[in-house]
Amino acid sequence: MNALSPAEQTDTWLYTFEKSLTKNDSNSASKLFQKDCYWRDLVVFTWNIKTSEGQTEIADMLSAVVSKIQPSNWKRDGDPTVKDGVIECWITFETRVAQGRGQVRLIDGKCWTLLTTMKELKGHEEKKGQNRGRGAIHGAFKDRKSWQELKSKKEARLGYEDQPYCVIVGGGQGGIALGARLQRLGVPTIIIESNARAGDSWRKRYKSLCLHDPVWYDHLPYLPFPDDWPVYTPKDKLGDWLESYVNIMELNYWTSSICTSANYDGSSGEWTVKIEHDGKLVTVRPKQLILATGMSGVPKMPNLPGIEGFKGELQHSSQHPGGEGYEGKTCVVIGSNNSAHDICASLWENGADVTMTQRSSTLVARSETLVDLGSRHLYSEDALAKGITTEIADMTTASRPYRVLTELQKPVCAEMQKRDKGFYARLEKAGFDLDFGEDGSGLFMKYIRRGAGYYIDVGASELIANGDIKLKPGQVAGLSANGVLMEDGSELPADLVVCATGYGSMNGWAAQLISQDVADKVGKVWGIGSNTTNDPGPWEGELRNIWKPTQQDGLWFHGGNLFQSRFYSEFLALQIKARAEGIATPVYALQETHHKS
Amino acid sequence: MNALSPAEQTDTWLYTFEKSLTKNDSNSASKLFQKDCYWRDLVVFTWNIKTSEGQTEIADMLSAVVSKIQPSNWKRDGDPTVKDGVIECWITFETRVAQGRGQVRLIDGKCWTLLTTMKELKGHEEKKGQNRGRGAIHGAFKDRKSWQELKSKKEARLGYEDQPYCVIVGGGQGGIALGARLQRLGVPTIIIESNARAGDSWRKRYKSLCLHDPVWYDHLPYLPFPDDWPVYTPKDKLGDWLESYVNIMELNYWTSSICTSANYDGSSGEWTVKIEHDGKLVTVRPKQLILATGMSGVPKMPNLPGIEGFKGELQHSSQHPGGEGYEGKTCVVIGSNNSAHDICASLWENGADVTMTQRSSTLVARSETLVDLGSRHLYSEDALAKGITTEIADMTTASRPYRVLTELQKPVCAEMQKRDKGFYARLEKAGFDLDFGEDGSGLFMKYIRRGAGYYIDVGASELIANGDIKLKPGQVAGLSANGVLMEDGSELPADLVVCATGYGSMNGWAAQLISQDVADKVGKVWGIGSNTTNDPGPWEGELRNIWKPTQQDGLWFHGGNLFQSRFYSEFLALQIKARAEGIATPVYALQETHHKS
Repeated sequence: MNALSPAEQTDTWLYTFEKSLTKNDSNSASKLFQKDCYWRDLVVFTWNIKTSEGQTEIADMLSAVVSKIQPSNWKRDGDPTVKDGVIECWITFETRVAQGRGQVRLIDGKCWTLLTTMKELKGHEEKKGQNRGRGAIHGAFKDRKSWQELKSKKEARLGYEDQPYCVIVGGGQGGIALGARLQRLGVPTIIIESNARAGDSWRKRYKSLCLHDPVWYDHLPYLPFPDDWPVYTPKDKLGDWLESYVNIMELNYWTSSICTSANYDGSSGEWTVKIEHDGKLVTVRPKQLILATGMSGVPKMPNLPGIEGFKGELQHSSQHPGGEGYEGKTCVVIGSNNSAHDICASLWENGADVTMTQRSSTLVARSETLVDLGSRHLYSEDALAKGITTEIADMTTASRPYRVLTELQKPVCAEMQKRDKGFYARLEKAGFDLDFGEDGSGLFMKYIRRGAGYYIDVGASELIANGDIKLKPGQVAGLSANGVLMEDGSELPADLVVCATGYGSMNGWAAQLISQDVADKVGKVWGIGSNTTNDPGPWEGELRNIWKPTQQDGLWFHGGNLFQSRFYSEFLALQIKARAEGIATPVYALQETHHKS
Repeated sequence: MNALSPAEQTDTWLYTFEKSLTKNDSNSASKLFQKDCYWRDLVVFTWNIKTSEGQTEIADMLSAVVSKIQPSNWKRDGDPTVKDGVIECWITFETRVAQGRGQVRLIDGKCWTLLTTMKELKGHEEKKGQNRGRGAIHGAFKDRKSWQELKSKKEARLGYEDQPYCVIVGGGQGGIALGARLQRLGVPTIIIESNARAGDSWRKRYKSLCLHDPVWYDHLPYLPFPDDWPVYTPKDKLGDWLESYVNIMELNYWTSSICTSANYDGSSGEWTVKIEHDGKLVTVRPKQLILATGMSGVPKMPNLPGIEGFKGELQHSSQHPGGEGYEGKTCVVIGSNNSAHDICASLWENGADVTMTQRSSTLVARSETLVDLGSRHLYSEDALAKGITTEIADMTTASRPYRVLTELQKPVCAEMQKRDKGFYARLEKAGFDLDFGEDGSGLFMKYIRRGAGYYIDVGASELIANGDIKLKPGQVAGLSANGVLMEDGSELPADLVVCATGYGSMNGWAAQLISQDVADKVGKVWGIGSNTTNDPGPWEGELRNIWKPTQQDGLWFHGGNLFQSRFYSEFLALQIKARAEGIATPVYALQETHHKS
């Protein structure tokens, strides 16, 4: 039992830690950590997103960065909490150029996990609250320009007379959230969206689609949903919200625009980006290019022998318009992940005869259970009532390094299997091949490792269990004139075949837009090197190449679910703002390329 | 010195008060108030907006309502504050049909002011927070309808197959805020807006217009402005916000629509409202009709002899497009209130030669001073930092009955004169005829009494003081061929004459839309019977005919500034919801008609 109170222990640790850092004594500083320890840094120490694991990695990192970063003024932010012998406390600190905030977890007076994040760049804070703009200019002026005139002029010039500092390709929630952050920071940015209206990327998807995460997890930055917003947002409602959000945030959002090519000139540090905009070809020259075309990459179509002789309709799941119009048709869906389930259910609802082919095991989690065990303690009305705001919830989520998170997820996944035992038994009885992750770490880790391999059940599993959706296990050999040929020799007749066969890595967009060389140089995006299916090692400890610098100067990837779009857009925006302001941004441990896709 | 703590004094008072009410002993209850006392009720006791003044009026009110209302469960909501011997405490209570909240102020153990307001109708609470809708319907259903399909169908039927319960004429901030409240309460409502887009009523005004109140005072219900919103919102930005708000709140908002007539059938309790909508004439039959066409009524044009011979351009201020296009022109503005000043400044900024005619004294207040002395303690970042949310600020504002407020405003106005002494001296030196209200109660009371008679200085006063805007005191006799004739025999040459001569009472809209009879039956809207210019007695104690029942069944007026639109829309919506649900709404002290306009 420690004689000091948790607050005193935290203060003592912070004091000793600061002293070591001030003396640039990386070795002593690393010794203030447990043997099993993690320091997760979001931008403020490493100008990167980097988790250092163990005392040696921490000492190495500190040796490389501390003299440049000059951290100081470490303070507790509120009182610590204690649970199972772990003291947990929010902290603030600063560096030469930034304000920081974070969290420390102590065991027996030594640090188990440390989170450090950049809050704002000194002298480049967002203009809000007391520092917001005036709006009206009181007085009388002969050359007065109204807000509307200034705005219209700026919009008309940007991309033509004036060059944007950033171009974001893709105007979904990712591009929009990042655009809003950059707008607040005063970084001239154009968002390129191929659709006619903001939100169309949601509107155009199949009719029954709703967000799978509950509303508390889904807020965009700066403008939370009103308190009557439905728990699971219907896709058209989300589309309308995004459109309003773009207007309210005054984003430079080019609709009906296609980015056709991008080339980087290393000597000028400038991209040449060609865009079809309003029917004209426009060339813009930003310093930074962000691909925000979704965390999924280019649609993957399987190699299907006999495809040319197939008489029916063949689609990738991304092209599937929804089940309307397929009444009475015989449909085969290849794949058994989220899209496959949603499409099967929609086809069944519309009166089609539906078969799902399952090629490999799939993790299924009931939506209610997932919310209950997964996000409720941080993202819910109950959490809000306990004072856990979205910001606190996000920082808490971020405070768990992926290796720690993996271990934390295992008992949650076991509890889910226990709770929904009957549900899983019925699915297995119907022939469904279930898994819970190779190490039993469940759905969220599958999402982090490969962004696929699971279904969040909102209704289709019942149709599989009761046989309304027919299940065909096994590999697809090809297509016949009238349907799908399986490796076991059987044939599934089909008027429609939907390949819900997933997507490539996001760097596939870079190959299309820039070049295969650049795509290969950057390498695979997403995944943490867990050495499980579709996420080969070596261990990275952080998602590859997203929200952080890549091997290609001036090229960034942004995406993910609504939480990730909200949270990580802040750190990506700060990295870009620093570059726009000419602040030195020495990147520690730049992502290495181990896999091309 | 009272031996009890402030909290104990409040508890004691509430306990004794509740006992008297439970026994229906109005006389005893009224004796718990000071001799000089006020009970301001918003809907929950009186189904009206009513301030009872003095023990006798309070006893009379209680005798009439208590047995029907059945108030109970009076409780302190937090700890009281004490200032200058006044104990101030938030309270909650309930009635047979509603939850209530309010505030009590005690002096020497007796009540000085009591505020009671309806919070929600039991069983008809807004569906928010924990009780929000689900959005997605999990499961699989053969007849699934998406959110978009249901919404489109509902919109297409409303006003045709389905009748709205309410029609709101006027889609400015007033109609929109009320529409959002009714939407939350599930009352089918159509908002009729003549312009092509929501927000156009702002966009179409003169270029330099910004809100005169700071942002903290201007939030709409449910969706506060983001924290970087400018202090004084430019008019086009407000227009864009209103348009987004209409979409986000899913209001049934009919643009490019004109309400041409409305007639009430007393036997069916139904209006027949004719609307030109999308080029077709549509007849709808709501139970409630709300005129939300602005707190100003029909534009008032003065009787100007010689008008037919005038060769220049003549406009009412409401028609004035802004100063652009008047460069080099000679312009005369008749009037010296807000619009007159704004128009003069805009004309000057655009290079016109400008003369303002001042017909009577005007109150001028510098915008900065007004914010500093007037609203800063409740509506500002400082207030927010002290925990004064918009809701608390609104309730605090509401807790001051108009007679008390008048007295509170006098020292504020005196302080303003002191602080801006040099400013006022320069204006007077330029010949400007100043006043500070007939009883020195200042700008806000002028707004409440007559909605006119003042200018919030954002720049024009300097132009008057330095002679850039010429000032001509005196009455206008008429127009000559070339300008304005003054009663002193002088002539002001003019290419443009703008009559900034104000507006009639809101019941003028009822005369145009319904009939002169109904307009006369309802009488004047706005003003509190202060027996000052344009606000004749008798004393009413509350604004006439707005946000509360009128002498015409099913006819309501809604409007005011953004605070009033936000705050009073809640109580108007609750009155309408109660009627929609068939809850008894016995109105106490229905507004009597003392003045036709």
